[in-house]
Amino acid sequence: MSSMRDLSKMKLFTLNSNIPLAEEIANHIGVELGDCSIKRFSDGEVQISIEETIRGFDTYLIQSTSEPGNEYLMELLIMIDALKRASAKTINVVIPYYGYSRQDRKARAREPITAKLIANLLEAAGATRVLSVDIHASQVQGFFNIPVDQLKTNALLSDYFINKQLDEIVVVAPENAGTARARGLADRLNAPIAFLDKQRSSDPNAVQGVHVIGDIEGKTAIIIDDMIDTARTVTSGSLALMKNGAKEVYACCSHGVLSEPAVERIRQSPLKEVIITNSIYQSEGKKDDKIISLSIGPLLAEGIMRVHNNESISTLFDEE
Amino acid sequence: MSSMRDLSKMKLFTLNSNIPLAEEIANHIGVELGDCSIKRFSDGEVQISIEETIRGFDTYLIQSTSEPGNEYLMELLIMIDALKRASAKTINVVIPYYGYSRQDRKARAREPITAKLIANLLEAAGATRVLSVDIHASQVQGFFNIPVDQLKTNALLSDYFINKQLDEIVVVAPENAGTARARGLADRLNAPIAFLDKQRSSDPNAVQGVHVIGDIEGKTAIIIDDMIDTARTVTSGSLALMKNGAKEVYACCSHGVLSEPAVERIRQSPLKEVIITNSIYQSEGKKDDKIISLSIGPLLAEGIMRVHNNESISTLFDEE
Amino acid sequence: MSSMRDLSKMKLFTLNSNIPLAEEIANHIGVELGDCSIKRFSDGEVQISIEETIRGFDTYLIQSTSEPGNEYLMELLIMIDALKRASAKTINVVIPYYGYSRQDRKARAREPITAKLIANLLEAAGATRVLSVDIHASQVQGFFNIPVDQLKTNALLSDYFINKQLDEIVVVAPENAGTARARGLADRLNAPIAFLDKQRSSDPNAVQGVHVIGDIEGKTAIIIDDMIDTARTVTSGSLALMKNGAKEVYACCSHGVLSEPAVERIRQSPLKEVIITNSIYQSEGKKDDKIISLSIGPLLAEGIMRVHNNESISTLFDEE
Amino acid sequence: MSSMRDLSKMKLFTLNSNIPLAEEIANHIGVELGDCSIKRFSDGEVQISIEETIRGFDTYLIQSTSEPGNEYLMELLIMIDALKRASAKTINVVIPYYGYSRQDRKARAREPITAKLIANLLEAAGATRVLSVDIHASQVQGFFNIPVDQLKTNALLSDYFINKQLDEIVVVAPENAGTARARGLADRLNAPIAFLDKQRSSDPNAVQGVHVIGDIEGKTAIIIDDMIDTARTVTSGSLALMKNGAKEVYACCSHGVLSEPAVERIRQSPLKEVIITNSIYQSEGKKDDKIISLSIGPLLAEGIMRVHNNESISTLFDEE
Amino acid sequence: MSSMRDLSKMKLFTLNSNIPLAEEIANHIGVELGDCSIKRFSDGEVQISIEETIRGFDTYLIQSTSEPGNEYLMELLIMIDALKRASAKTINVVIPYYGYSRQDRKARAREPITAKLIANLLEAAGATRVLSVDIHASQVQGFFNIPVDQLKTNALLSDYFINKQLDEIVVVAPENAGTARARGLADRLNAPIAFLDKQRSSDPNAVQGVHVIGDIEGKTAIIIDDMIDTARTVTSGSLALMKNGAKEVYACCSHGVLSEPAVERIRQSPLKEVIITNSIYQSEGKKDDKIISLSIGPLLAEGIMRVHNNESISTLFDEE
Amino acid sequence: MSSMRDLSKMKLFTLNSNIPLAEEIANHIGVELGDCSIKRFSDGEVQISIEETIRGFDTYLIQSTSEPGNEYLMELLIMIDALKRASAKTINVVIPYYGYSRQDRKARAREPITAKLIANLLEAAGATRVLSVDIHASQVQGFFNIPVDQLKTNALLSDYFINKQLDEIVVVAPENAGTARARGLADRLNAPIAFLDKQRSSDPNAVQGVHVIGDIEGKTAIIIDDMIDTARTVTSGSLALMKNGAKEVYACCSHGVLSEPAVERIRQSPLKEVIITNSIYQSEGKKDDKIISLSIGPLLAEGIMRVHNNESISTLFDEE
Repeated sequence: MSSMRDLSKMKLFTLNSNIPLAEEIANHIGVELGDCSIKRFSDGEVQISIEETIRGFDTYLIQSTSEPGNEYLMELLIMIDALKRASAKTINVVIPYYGYSRQDRKARAREPITAKLIANLLEAAGATRVLSVDIHASQVQGFFNIPVDQLKTNALLSDYFINKQLDEIVVVAPENAGTARARGLADRLNAPIAFLDKQRSSDPNAVQGVHVIGDIEGKTAIIIDDMIDTARTVTSGSLALMKNGAKEVYACCSHGVLSEPAVERIRQSPLKEVIITNSIYQSEGKKDDKIISLSIGPLLAEGIMRVHNNESISTLFDEE
Repeated sequence: MSSMRDLSKMKLFTLNSNIPLAEEIANHIGVELGDCSIKRFSDGEVQISIEETIRGFDTYLIQSTSEPGNEYLMELLIMIDALKRASAKTINVVIPYYGYSRQDRKARAREPITAKLIANLLEAAGATRVLSVDIHASQVQGFFNIPVDQLKTNALLSDYFINKQLDEIVVVAPENAGTARARGLADRLNAPIAFLDKQRSSDPNAVQGVHVIGDIEGKTAIIIDDMIDTARTVTSGSLALMKNGAKEVYACCSHGVLSEPAVERIRQSPLKEVIITNSIYQSEGKKDDKIISLSIGPLLAEGIMRVHNNESISTLFDEE
Repeated sequence: MSSMRDLSKMKLFTLNSNIPLAEEIANHIGVELGDCSIKRFSDGEVQISIEETIRGFDTYLIQSTSEPGNEYLMELLIMIDALKRASAKTINVVIPYYGYSRQDRKARAREPITAKLIANLLEAAGATRVLSVDIHASQVQGFFNIPVDQLKTNALLSDYFINKQLDEIVVVAPENAGTARARGLADRLNAPIAFLDKQRSSDPNAVQGVHVIGDIEGKTAIIIDDMIDTARTVTSGSLALMKNGAKEVYACCSHGVLSEPAVERIRQSPLKEVIITNSIYQSEGKKDDKIISLSIGPLLAEGIMRVHNNESISTLFDEE
Repeated sequence: MSSMRDLSKMKLFTLNSNIPLAEEIANHIGVELGDCSIKRFSDGEVQISIEETIRGFDTYLIQSTSEPGNEYLMELLIMIDALKRASAKTINVVIPYYGYSRQDRKARAREPITAKLIANLLEAAGATRVLSVDIHASQVQGFFNIPVDQLKTNALLSDYFINKQLDEIVVVAPENAGTARARGLADRLNAPIAFLDKQRSSDPNAVQGVHVIGDIEGKTAIIIDDMIDTARTVTSGSLALMKNGAKEVYACCSHGVLSEPAVERIRQSPLKEVIITNSIYQSEGKKDDKIISLSIGPLLAEGIMRVHNNESISTLFDEE
Repeated sequence: MSSMRDLSKMKLFTLNSNIPLAEEIANHIGVELGDCSIKRFSDGEVQISIEETIRGFDTYLIQSTSEPGNEYLMELLIMIDALKRASAKTINVVIPYYGYSRQDRKARAREPITAKLIANLLEAAGATRVLSVDIHASQVQGFFNIPVDQLKTNALLSDYFINKQLDEIVVVAPENAGTARARGLADRLNAPIAFLDKQRSSDPNAVQGVHVIGDIEGKTAIIIDDMIDTARTVTSGSLALMKNGAKEVYACCSHGVLSEPAVERIRQSPLKEVIITNSIYQSEGKKDDKIISLSIGPLLAEGIMRVHNNESISTLFDEE
Repeated sequence: MSSMRDLSKMKLFTLNSNIPLAEEIANHIGVELGDCSIKRFSDGEVQISIEETIRGFDTYLIQSTSEPGNEYLMELLIMIDALKRASAKTINVVIPYYGYSRQDRKARAREPITAKLIANLLEAAGATRVLSVDIHASQVQGFFNIPVDQLKTNALLSDYFINKQLDEIVVVAPENAGTARARGLADRLNAPIAFLDKQRSSDPNAVQGVHVIGDIEGKTAIIIDDMIDTARTVTSGSLALMKNGAKEVYACCSHGVLSEPAVERIRQSPLKEVIITNSIYQSEGKKDDKIISLSIGPLLAEGIMRVHNNESISTLFDEE
């Protein structure tokens, strides 16, 4: 990184969702995290105290709105309000994992579009820019009127597999979605793709209703999704793939949500490895030898510095 | 209540914070609560499902943003978004207890004004009116650009004491605040007032730094506040009042926040009774014989009906 | 349709993009189209003249923003402004085909998100509701803060194929997208799905770089997409499917954009039929015996009436 | 003050309400007041003429919205519009006395919240920041979405009394309000507090319905309020305090509104001195030997410079 | 007027600028003026008290922002805020004379556009519609995003002159403006037009620099303008016209601003009559036999009723 | 021009309407036009690609919204969206010819105010400033809340005629409008003015209903208007002037719209010359020896540089 970059007038703050990632980012950039405390009053209300002047500064707030998402979102909104009223010059919200991103359309009548609501709330509070990573649907960028910079983990994930020097890979798209993402990884690994199809009709080869479409016989299958939540999809997919003749099965994703009983399911599945990133902080209970976490700290650090120095971000990653 | 009132095109919904109060309100009005479910996805995200059409209806949403306030606030915001997108004609938010109301100004540098932030969030989500009860500072009405109808519990509380036929009452304002509220109750009870003064200087008669100002000797003291949170103020106040010669001490408030260790403190204090309302739902663990809960259900029901029928609300209570 | 429905205070207007569809809708509803003229000044500027009072009316404007999309969009925005200033009660914009819907995210650096821009423009002009049909990505609903009702053609398309009583159908998703849409049609037709994969790597069976994944041997393949623009995807897909053993190939979509040289490509392809709807008006030059147009007039008429009478729209179609 | 401070790109303007204060501020900062004239057309409409370029400048406008408040407010709004359209970089509104601040809540049904209205008007006109002094209720900060810096006169007032070396002080809160403010001054003077209680019930010691609560016998009483308008409260309070045994009575406040017949009342009262500041300009007719005016010019000058240099303002005063 | 018109749910209020006109309007419509008082606090701040419920009503506020314009504008804005917070359904602002309308563009650098500012303030306060009369420039309608209905006095003025049965009229446009208005009156009177040209160059026939262009010899000249303020233009124009051979000279306008020394100038001029309307209230001191005031009460009453009943307003007058 | 001016952090882009003018401006300023392409997708939708980073830059977009105005307007709006999302610091829209500017008021009932709509669209898209030239009505500045700098061609046009050293000029205002503009040119040329009056009544000297008012006998008449569209006004005006004894007739304007059949009309008219500027690009077919085009490139270049360097623009031209 260039030593010419100007870090004055920059303040980097973290809230409570992922302090280790924030510290890693601060180290990469070469700044201290800003001095503030985010506590709770006795009735659970968020209490924020910024302990140094930020008047006229470009501020960067790091917070994933992962579980407990409502708590972390409110921390974020309240901190934005505090920064706005304390006369920050800009308020750049860095959301490694954008919670509620799956609620991005009315799938059924009278549903909310919570991902859009959150965009409105962030703008209403006073955010002036969003940086995020691999949002569930890229259209979420369009939910905002402020600039959104979306970083991508595709190089991080493909490099991991390239380094493994696996033979005869097939990239597998999960249940009726994510084909473009699978095609992107396949291009980087120079591999074909296959699909998992969740269908109602009976299929003697289906496992838990999951049918494999495409040629996976004797191959190393890599299921790719943007996030792994309860792990039902990837674990039932891995069973179907093994039953249909795959040599071994990996799964990878950007965001390891890993809600109960994800870890247990992964342990008991034929999945060889599950590759995630540290966009979401994992408690000890959610760790397992099979689960490999890659760090997006350097990527976010570089992204923040480029924003701060008005450099292009697009060169940070291949675009699909 | 008048049978002439038109309840068609009205839908009353409750979220999760205070279902018994919502049911009481619905009973008073004579409608069923709307059919919706407010659940959680496996990662804790709020999942809302409205099960009947509300297109073109005036909708009323009942939700106190009491502990866990962030969860209940997000439920409320998401439900408002769902109603807006499902084409509700109006979205009337009924908030018996308005959480974060004490964060209503920058008490120190670089603090948020969270009560204002929440007003902005409610408007950004799509609320078209707010009904609330005894907000910490009446100025919070001015945080909104949409109409705010504030209901008051002053008659409810004073009637309770009038019915008790107590002799020689003195109404006591808590630590350096709430004098107007105390004066209001004193007028209704035809009583004088006194004050609790929290001061740094030493005073041999002070209890835990609380000094009594005014004549309370031999009188029944009633401490009044808008809310009782950890109960430190009212319990140390009751000690100071008893030590200074009060005959007995009551405390009353609109909102029983009762955070830990409020109930234990009340039990061990000389307080004879603590009068609260059901604006906040109290779990079994927070109940105690000393704590009397008055219902604001009829008041809210009447308030909602008057809004719905475009009748004046101001006649519902004396104004201060 | 119920004779109870109240059509007073409703005015239905059409602009210039698809007058036959607007007339069909008006006939279904049983109203006359509103009296207005949408002309051009000598320098090409749009000249609008509404010839009857609409003060206090619920107005419905029918306009597809199909080619020439910029002209039709400006007609729409100017008409909205005229209605707003003439005191329409509501301005319901009915957009059978939502142009620019493919520009719904930043696919590369420094791209606009034009689909979002148009949402902002419609709101800035004064639209109070949008009705549209099968928008490219459902997330576009979230680009709006006003209610969006999205109608769906899935029943219309599947009924067409059910009536044909075809044997051994396989539904085919086009190049690395639209799997959910394909799965939906397949469920209605009780059929399996297959995929067309556009990849860089060489594949001896690929046609114009398109590889077929899934079992289509001897089957009737139906390619489904939301729109057919230049028809490159469906025609090269049909070649690949035939070469890989399909018995015959149909293509279907909601929106027949049919830019040059779509019609010629379709004529020369092995496609047996291409099923579209009349969401976009087709000039004589774009007609061909192979191209079957189904009418969405009844669907839109019913949708408009339900909006006008505050009835649920969701029962109009199965949701995916 | 530091000579390092950058005063380029700053323009300080005054409107008509308090030109001497503006000149004092300009002197402290070391700049000339900007060249503009604020006149009236023949029909009384405000005519503004800015005579030097302010394109790209940080502008500071000094105007108290004191009597005639509507005139001064309109001057302020029109000047903001002129600055906005002339491309000022920022428009910082310095309002030493914020008029209408007592209209900060709906005290009765169907009242306006004029203090909030004015916040909305200032933002609609284009103000980007507000600096004010001791606003009637601190919650008014929350009426704004732009940053508000509130300066405080507490040190100025307490230093005045400390310098007087008075014995046995008691600080007195006026009629059922302002206890926190009284407690703050008392802490600085290391004194106890007492209260004036306006009540309906008869009290033989009450003067004009004002009852004294607390121990004031033989003491020097200092009544503190945020503003003194008609002086009814402080003069009747001083009578009650003297009658109840006070040695002497002072009154102090931040804002000397001094509407008729305030000066006459003060002259005829037992008040020894009334301490105000120059936040409001006092005509000759409103001057009196008893009325001491302290200057907030240095405080405002320092506040403006800190804003301009992005320094913390909170260290300018103790916070309550 | 039709007895079918529904006047329920309508409340008509007047503020202080033109109570006789408001009463005339109320009489025409057949309603009582709403019960409210608009007073001043002792420091001159506006005090508003609405004494009857207006919840859910369509409200109409009558107020000319004539001199003292800032006072009357603030009354209007504060009343709008009160109505909004008291839950009026609509707030229709009836401004017979729109003050500051001449400040409708930046005539010189760094000028405000006060007419636009006022539009912004009215919208920010909560107005939902504006009715006005002959605004200085029709473009002011475009300053608003809410509907503006502009009534016109052209029929009122022309009928006055038609009834006079004058011979050989020439309509005269004042100094380099208002030609379209003059052409409109000339068409109604079937007369030619002439012009007054204010020029720097010397002209032996010019009076006070005013040159007459066009044939006025022996004719009855009628100068028409939208407003007469100091009357300099019409009185110097009348001198020039008489000197150039006119038989007699009338002046007419919609708005009689009549600032000092207008009345004196008119008295001393050769003007035979000056026709104004009662859009602005005239104090006794501004009355003169030469000044004829026509009432716009019936026009405004009819306009308000048509708005209330959703009827077309355009048929109320010929459009230019 | 000063070599001190800072051109870093400035990017100048042109869209498709007037590339030669943009290049001329870029040359004057001494910068390259920014690297972007504005193309069309196969269905005519605008495709924008900005090929260099503009993060943190002040951007200037040159686009006249001349015919085809809707296409050029959409290019402009989409480019603004792209710049906003790519984090431009400011987006300065340079519109030499502001299309739809004649739709600046409701001339008849239920008309749009398209010039205002376009102002709203530009602001909604994200423009932060507008520079334009001689807008049809100066009030259009007031349609914006962002700063508008209006440049004027009056010196350019008058210098042209001064250089011609014409004798006995009379400046002529076209049909019942533009008198102030004519008076301005007349002052610069030290000439009298006359008028063209379009009237219904018969006049033996009228040509095509156009009557000449004022003394033009034997003089060189110069008709001035802000734009010449179909040229009906100036050509019929020239006929009337010649018939009434003018020596010769010129016409001049800022904007040569020249819609069909303007050029043919001009050729066949007695007009000696028609002076326009290059605010609108003229295709070869619209060129004619009689039509003289003056360049506003230097004026716009200087205007842009002054904006960029925060210098006053008003000194660039005399103000009327």
